[in-house]
Amino acid sequence: MLPTLFTALKKNRARIHEIIYEADTRAGKAFDVALLIAILASVLVIMLDSVRALQEMFHLGFVILEWVFTILFTLEYALRLWCVNRPIKYVFSFYGLVDLISVLPTWAGLFFPQAHYLLSVRVLRMLRIFRIFKLANYLTQAEVLKQALIESRRKITVFLITVITIAVIVGSLIYIIEGEENGFTSIPRGIYWSIVTLTTVGYGDIAPKTGLGQALASIVMVMGYAIIAVPTGIVTAELTQLKLKKISTQVCPSCAAEGHDTDAKFCKDCGSKL
Amino acid sequence: MLPTLFTALKKNRARIHEIIYEADTRAGKAFDVALLIAILASVLVIMLDSVRALQEMFHLGFVILEWVFTILFTLEYALRLWCVNRPIKYVFSFYGLVDLISVLPTWAGLFFPQAHYLLSVRVLRMLRIFRIFKLANYLTQAEVLKQALIESRRKITVFLITVITIAVIVGSLIYIIEGEENGFTSIPRGIYWSIVTLTTVGYGDIAPKTGLGQALASIVMVMGYAIIAVPTGIVTAELTQLKLKKISTQVCPSCAAEGHDTDAKFCKDCGSKL
Amino acid sequence: MLPTLFTALKKNRARIHEIIYEADTRAGKAFDVALLIAILASVLVIMLDSVRALQEMFHLGFVILEWVFTILFTLEYALRLWCVNRPIKYVFSFYGLVDLISVLPTWAGLFFPQAHYLLSVRVLRMLRIFRIFKLANYLTQAEVLKQALIESRRKITVFLITVITIAVIVGSLIYIIEGEENGFTSIPRGIYWSIVTLTTVGYGDIAPKTGLGQALASIVMVMGYAIIAVPTGIVTAELTQLKLKKISTQVCPSCAAEGHDTDAKFCKDCGSKL
Amino acid sequence: MLPTLFTALKKNRARIHEIIYEADTRAGKAFDVALLIAILASVLVIMLDSVRALQEMFHLGFVILEWVFTILFTLEYALRLWCVNRPIKYVFSFYGLVDLISVLPTWAGLFFPQAHYLLSVRVLRMLRIFRIFKLANYLTQAEVLKQALIESRRKITVFLITVITIAVIVGSLIYIIEGEENGFTSIPRGIYWSIVTLTTVGYGDIAPKTGLGQALASIVMVMGYAIIAVPTGIVTAELTQLKLKKISTQVCPSCAAEGHDTDAKFCKDCGSKL
Repeated sequence: MLPTLFTALKKNRARIHEIIYEADTRAGKAFDVALLIAILASVLVIMLDSVRALQEMFHLGFVILEWVFTILFTLEYALRLWCVNRPIKYVFSFYGLVDLISVLPTWAGLFFPQAHYLLSVRVLRMLRIFRIFKLANYLTQAEVLKQALIESRRKITVFLITVITIAVIVGSLIYIIEGEENGFTSIPRGIYWSIVTLTTVGYGDIAPKTGLGQALASIVMVMGYAIIAVPTGIVTAELTQLKLKKISTQVCPSCAAEGHDTDAKFCKDCGSKL
Repeated sequence: MLPTLFTALKKNRARIHEIIYEADTRAGKAFDVALLIAILASVLVIMLDSVRALQEMFHLGFVILEWVFTILFTLEYALRLWCVNRPIKYVFSFYGLVDLISVLPTWAGLFFPQAHYLLSVRVLRMLRIFRIFKLANYLTQAEVLKQALIESRRKITVFLITVITIAVIVGSLIYIIEGEENGFTSIPRGIYWSIVTLTTVGYGDIAPKTGLGQALASIVMVMGYAIIAVPTGIVTAELTQLKLKKISTQVCPSCAAEGHDTDAKFCKDCGSKL
Repeated sequence: MLPTLFTALKKNRARIHEIIYEADTRAGKAFDVALLIAILASVLVIMLDSVRALQEMFHLGFVILEWVFTILFTLEYALRLWCVNRPIKYVFSFYGLVDLISVLPTWAGLFFPQAHYLLSVRVLRMLRIFRIFKLANYLTQAEVLKQALIESRRKITVFLITVITIAVIVGSLIYIIEGEENGFTSIPRGIYWSIVTLTTVGYGDIAPKTGLGQALASIVMVMGYAIIAVPTGIVTAELTQLKLKKISTQVCPSCAAEGHDTDAKFCKDCGSKL
Repeated sequence: MLPTLFTALKKNRARIHEIIYEADTRAGKAFDVALLIAILASVLVIMLDSVRALQEMFHLGFVILEWVFTILFTLEYALRLWCVNRPIKYVFSFYGLVDLISVLPTWAGLFFPQAHYLLSVRVLRMLRIFRIFKLANYLTQAEVLKQALIESRRKITVFLITVITIAVIVGSLIYIIEGEENGFTSIPRGIYWSIVTLTTVGYGDIAPKTGLGQALASIVMVMGYAIIAVPTGIVTAELTQLKLKKISTQVCPSCAAEGHDTDAKFCKDCGSKL
């Protein structure tokens, strides 16, 4: 029977490629939807398996389901490798890597029991969701966000290095001021506290108890408050510019007016053709 | 007596419709103000009833008041249904649904004791407040905010899916790193913690205790710090553009094109005078 | 001696007015600086008096100092009233009211012991600081911020009502879900929790413990995360527009170019006079 | 041997200057990379030395390493002083001061045991990192951020004074409302709490317990939520303007006016060609 299956596969290589990689055809879309449900179901199984009460009741069922999904995804990975024209390129693409590390943890779990929880990375496969409906629109928006972040990468790097520098210095100061008896048992812990404070997360698991420590904390908080404005400002300025750029810089040939929309065909001030 | 009342109602159907649905006339405005006070009073009663000390003292009074408000609102709902021209449309409109679920919980409370606290949804009726004073101005502003959010819905969807994906992966990692002995009893709980951290809420009910966990938390916090910039940037860029462009709602008389600048004198698509 | 003092005061009424109300002359500036120091010192005394350890040691000294400052400020208030031309207008101005409530608590403290801590409102007098150095620049900036906030007041009202509505509904839901045994003892307390969560403050004094409660909290947090973008967007869009407006809309008379700075005297494209 | 070394140093003074101060040549870059690694390693040693468990095991090793780094950095400081043309200017420059305080704590540690933790300020030397790769680009971005902050300094000052005033008043109110039995032991502690709340950090080490206190906290939180919008708006508007205007650094040859748009062909102040 297996040889017959292989012959059938070989004959339909192009069609299989279309079903697996594209979402335009009916079959392709059905495949993507089924895949998405399988991904979500498998992530759900992993999550539920980690809940003690449920694990005690359904452990065997969860293990079986996990293996079913893993074998399905492994077969799918093999199929993808086989029907694509440039398998090496696929293997090292973002989705290729995600597909691979989505099956590895179960196999690794045979040797390291904790590893199978790493299967949660399967949720990354969920990003295929954008492929299923109005792909282009969402990808364009993701592209805009990505471009805004790339344009600002230097400003963000400068910003991050500044924040880390502040965190290290403040972390050392608080360690000296508060000391071990107030929970600041080491400089790394002080740095952890200063990041918790600067980012306005504020768990409260460690908090300054002396007056001097609370004064320092107050300064750091107000600083963090001002600092939070910077990355927001950077990304916003970038997004605003990308949005406003859409206003064409074209000048009307007859009246020299500026500020036309990019899709304008006639001058909005005198009506002559642009 | 009842038949007389019904005849009186029938005669004044148009006037009743005006009083209940409009806020332009003196009577209409008085009705809306009275309704608003009744809504706020009824929400207040529900809140106070939930406070143990007050409940023990005034429980009977609260129950009576709640039934009075419920019967009043039920009558009002019936009146609205009766005097509107297209009752089906009203029933399924936003305010129609709100009006209905504002009375249901008391009746449901006859069977499920906890249900009557759901009466707090009555506060949604408070949104009618915008109708009472300078309606138009506030609704325009609400419209601008709504439009900015609608325009950005795709970017926000992309953003939310990214955040959820990060939360699932970080939640699994922290579960493996910290384990049950430090309060991370399951992956869903780990995801809950990672959302608490990413959004910079930081309750501190669960917090990493190992060095590795705190290092991961620090990275997540700085990431959350950078990520918070993105939705702000999206909405701001949208609002700034709406402000700067002030797109006119004028439609071209010859080609029906929309989206002209407010200062445009000629259609940007066909060049004819606006 | 007192009559001589009064005569001297009467003679110099105009000069005293200048010293007290203006900061342009040498004496006026000296007076303002001395006043500022007195204000800060008096607020410091009140703060230190509230610290148990210090109070036990220096209570008498603190009381004497507080009375010295109060009598000084009362005399100053009387002088201000006497030398100004329209005392009624001063009494009901912002600074007039602040000056009055800055002395009242000590006198009220004779009857209500806790009242004298309200003297901290004296810190409001510190806002006079802007008068001392480059007044105009700072006031202009404060004006810009104020204008941006006023322009956005309708959007902010819409936003606040939305937030309060969400807080009331979420607060009732969490009260039903978590119940009294998990610290949510009443609906008002649930609302307090939902505001703590929505604003990403997250004290952690009350936190959901059931799975369902944590799921609701997660949704509220991500919502709060998205919502925080709205007021920021509103204020930023307003400030950006105020900044960009500075670009004049003047058109060059010879080449019709636009986009000149407001302080430009010549066209930046052809060099002809504007 | 030492005299020979000094002669060799004297001969190569210009070359040494180039290696130490520039990052363009191969040797200069290698020196900077080595220095960076030494800085990071020395900061790491200080951090690890503060962890009790590691200190007990490796204390002697850490002390030796610290002295090695300190002597190296002291020698480097001496070399920098010797080979630069204007040593006084270097000593009082930002990097000169950082270089000095990076070695002082170890020497001070001979007298004050805690002082050596202050060595963490060495991390400030890490800012030299920008020199190593594509210097110009990063410095330009840092310059843009700095300029945006400088331009907004007056608005930020106004904002900070407002925040501090609110914090002092709210801190006094909460002290009166909650009192010592709920953890608000003094007004300074109340101010600390109000800053923790206004900045949305929310440790939860002190939190209001009475109904009135929680109501005040809710108002402060919503206020803080609105206030956080202001610094973000300020910086963003500044960055957006800098982006949109891209003010040229060109100076007019005839009237020396600055601040022309990048596309300006004629001076906007005197009309002469740029």
